[in-house]
Amino acid sequence: MSKSLEFLTEALRRLPGVGPKSAQRMAFHLLQHDREGADMLSRALHQAVSAVHHCALCNTFTEEEVCDTCIDEERDRRLLCVVETPADQLMIEQTLTYKGLYFVLMGRLSPLDGIGPRDIHLEKLVARATDGLVTEVVLATNFTNEGEATAHYISEMLKARGLKVSRLARGVPVGGELEYVDAGTIARAMLDRRAT
Amino acid sequence: MSKSLEFLTEALRRLPGVGPKSAQRMAFHLLQHDREGADMLSRALHQAVSAVHHCALCNTFTEEEVCDTCIDEERDRRLLCVVETPADQLMIEQTLTYKGLYFVLMGRLSPLDGIGPRDIHLEKLVARATDGLVTEVVLATNFTNEGEATAHYISEMLKARGLKVSRLARGVPVGGELEYVDAGTIARAMLDRRAT
Ligand SMILES: [Zn+2]
Ligand SMILES: [Zn+2]
Repeated sequence: MSKSLEFLTEALRRLPGVGPKSAQRMAFHLLQHDREGADMLSRALHQAVSAVHHCALCNTFTEEEVCDTCIDEERDRRLLCVVETPADQLMIEQTLTYKGLYFVLMGRLSPLDGIGPRDIHLEKLVARATDGLVTEVVLATNFTNEGEATAHYISEMLKARGLKVSRLARGVPVGGELEYVDAGTIARAMLDRRAT
Repeated sequence: MSKSLEFLTEALRRLPGVGPKSAQRMAFHLLQHDREGADMLSRALHQAVSAVHHCALCNTFTEEEVCDTCIDEERDRRLLCVVETPADQLMIEQTLTYKGLYFVLMGRLSPLDGIGPRDIHLEKLVARATDGLVTEVVLATNFTNEGEATAHYISEMLKARGLKVSRLARGVPVGGELEYVDAGTIARAMLDRRAT
């Protein structure tokens, strides 16, 4: 195989979830059927690596010093929602139920993978949450073991600084039939039951 | 989301088998954890698109006018093996059972997808196979409907020009237990049975 093709196949394996077979298939496909796409991807990668960095306030990806969400005057500056990833932030935005600001951890605590408080920018979060305007921090990390541990850690840390900290409610999903929901979820929904 | 990130996510979707969710995951992963990989992939794509083209003789990918295999003096120039893709050629090379040359179609006939004789370079194949040195063409297209139809088409075309044309044998795979081999394969193995 040609050197450039080997290099391309090797580079494609840097993408998450791409093994040797699919890297080869991708390389052949681009060279045979979509050189324009290959060119576009080359430019997009170069541009993203040069232009994209972290928002000074909320830590998400942006090309500016401060991202569009953080400078949005319509946002309620008393609310700060903590999420693991930009994708999680997009999901919450799509619900149209939240009008505050965000902090994006870009990860979650995971001692087994060597990911500690520093790796998820908790010093930056503390500085952000104690700006004098934020009164409530809403923890919206995932409801996985690691996400729960991360929420717990952040909660203790921010409550010690006098902030009100809340967590997204757990329970039976909307449209969920009890028969098909796992027992742990039902147990939690029972414990967190609300007066109607 | 930032413009560069949107452009990158869109560009990643040009890769075969990559949907919107995995394109987003790839983009976030590269920017968050592997900017070096992103840079490497950008350069590899650019280099491959500029340097890689088709071998003048066998049609496979190469950076030279003629590929390493085609100029290999050790090869038997009387044998020409026709494969669909460079990956298929690599598979045959790995068997160490073939010492002739190759022609890589870079596809297979597929009228439903609008892929005709011209798209798989059959004029180039005819020119190659009628060089006066080749005496036998071994068809090693896949044993799918499209691969079989392609083999049949090429066989008729080359036999009309006086060439000997053969096809890889079909049958029960080595190590195959009859109980687990499909009936069509067993039927073909029975029809093609050989004296021992
Ligand atoms: Zn921001
Ligand atoms: Zn060649």
